[in-house]
Amino acid sequence: MSELLVGRHAVMESLRAGRRHYYRLWLEGDGQAAPKGTLAEIVNLAQKTKIPTRHIEGGIFDRIRRAQLNPQGVALETGPFPYADLDDILDLTRRKADPLLLVLDHLEDPRNLGTLFRSSEAFGVDGVILPERRAAGITPAVSNASSGAVEHIPVALVGNVNRTIDLLKKQNIWTVGLDLGQEAISLTDADLSGPLAVVVGNEGKGLSRLAREKCDFCVTIPMAGSVDSLNAAIAGSIVLFNAYQARDPQEAIKSD
Amino acid sequence: MSELLVGRHAVMESLRAGRRHYYRLWLEGDGQAAPKGTLAEIVNLAQKTKIPTRHIEGGIFDRIRRAQLNPQGVALETGPFPYADLDDILDLTRRKADPLLLVLDHLEDPRNLGTLFRSSEAFGVDGVILPERRAAGITPAVSNASSGAVEHIPVALVGNVNRTIDLLKKQNIWTVGLDLGQEAISLTDADLSGPLAVVVGNEGKGLSRLAREKCDFCVTIPMAGSVDSLNAAIAGSIVLFNAYQARDPQEAIKSD
Repeated sequence: MSELLVGRHAVMESLRAGRRHYYRLWLEGDGQAAPKGTLAEIVNLAQKTKIPTRHIEGGIFDRIRRAQLNPQGVALETGPFPYADLDDILDLTRRKADPLLLVLDHLEDPRNLGTLFRSSEAFGVDGVILPERRAAGITPAVSNASSGAVEHIPVALVGNVNRTIDLLKKQNIWTVGLDLGQEAISLTDADLSGPLAVVVGNEGKGLSRLAREKCDFCVTIPMAGSVDSLNAAIAGSIVLFNAYQARDPQEAIKSD
Repeated sequence: MSELLVGRHAVMESLRAGRRHYYRLWLEGDGQAAPKGTLAEIVNLAQKTKIPTRHIEGGIFDRIRRAQLNPQGVALETGPFPYADLDDILDLTRRKADPLLLVLDHLEDPRNLGTLFRSSEAFGVDGVILPERRAAGITPAVSNASSGAVEHIPVALVGNVNRTIDLLKKQNIWTVGLDLGQEAISLTDADLSGPLAVVVGNEGKGLSRLAREKCDFCVTIPMAGSVDSLNAAIAGSIVLFNAYQARDPQEAIKSD
C-alpha cells in the first residue's frame, strides 16, 4: 500500500534519504510556472531518480487539506516507512563509543512523535525504538511534523518495550527514564555520558511502572510553576540535548 | 464576545487562575454519572465561583471536535484572554533580582505558542510579550496546547517588537535572540544569568534581521544532523531551561 508524504521538508528529506520506494510526485497547480526554492530542489531530485511527476489542481491536495495537513504544494506517493530491525540498531550501537538511543514508550500524539524525531536528528540520536501496538507509528503526519527528520533515522518496532530495556542493559547501554517521581534524580545532576538509551513515556500517564523500575535510573527536569509537567516532546528533547552535550568533548561544559 | 475554552487542563487552570470572566461550564453527557478526577475538581471550582453548569450531548461538543480540538468532556464559556499591559510586566521585572521574559517575534503556529507557554510556566518565566499583528494570539487552541499554563502567565501585546527590545535594554534587561546565524554564540557558552529576555522568531523565517541586530547577543543551539533546525517551541524551551538553570531559585524574589 502506498503512502502520501506531504509538505516540502518531509518530501525533500525523504528524497534525500532515498530509503523508500517512490511512486509518483504530485505538484499543485497547472505546471505553467517553474518551481522555485525547495520545490525546485524536490523536482530536481525526483528527476534524477526518475520519479514520475504530475501537476494537479485540487483533487489530492484538497483531500490532504481536509486531513488538516498543509501540503505546501507538494505530495509524494511512496512505499511504507522503512523500519529497521532492532538487531541492526544494536549492531550500530556496538560500532560507536557512546551511542545514543531513544525509546518511546507509547506516545500517542503524532506531532509529539514527529517533534521528537526532529530533535533526535538534531542531537545525534543513533536509533529510535517504538512499541508496535497502542502507540503512534511513523505515518506521513509524523514525517511532516518531524520536518522530514524521521526519513533519516533508523527506527525499530518492538513487541515489548520492557523486554527491550532489559536487552539494552545486557548490551551495556545505560537506560534512563524520564519521570516526575520522587525517586528520579535532577537532570542537571545526572551523568548522561557513555552508551545511553533515553526512555520517554506516554503524554498523559508518563512511564509505565514496569518501565520505570527496569530503567537503570530516572531523571526529572527541575521546574517552577503550578502546571504539573512539560509537554512530552519538550521534556524528551531537553534530555536528548543534555545527552548530546555530554558526548561532545568540545561542548561538554554543563550549564549548572 | 465570549470564548470557549476546551479540554480538562485548560478549563481547570483557567478556573484556578481566576483571571477571566466566566459565563458557563458545559459538560458532555446526560449528567447521570457523577464526574470523577479532574472533571470533579472542575465542577467543584465552578460551584465555588457560582458559574452555571449545563450538561449537553453533541451540540457544542460536536462543533469543538469538528475544529480538531479534543474537549475531553468539558468546555468553559469565558470572556477574552486577560492581556496584561507591557508596563505591568516591566513593573514586575523591577521587583525581581533576575527576571526572565519571553518575547515571541511572530510565531504562527498555535501549538508551538501553547507549548512555549507551558515551558514558560515550568521554567519560571515572569511575562511573555507578543506582537499584536501578523502572529498567533491567545486563542482557546493556544490555551489548550499550553495545558492551561497560559492562564497563569502575564502576557502583553505590543505594536512593535523591535521597539520593545529597545525598551527592555533601557531597563537593563539583557535581550538574547535565538538564532542559527554565524554570529550567534553557542548556548552552552552563553551567560544567561541576570535580568533576561529571550527572543524567539518565526517558525520558518527565524528572527527578523532587525530583531537580531537589536538583541544584545544571539545564541544558537549546538546540533548534529542534516535537517537544518529544531522546532521553534523545542529550541525556545531549551533556551528557557538553560536560563532557568542559570537562576538561583532562592534569590528570585527581591522583596516580599
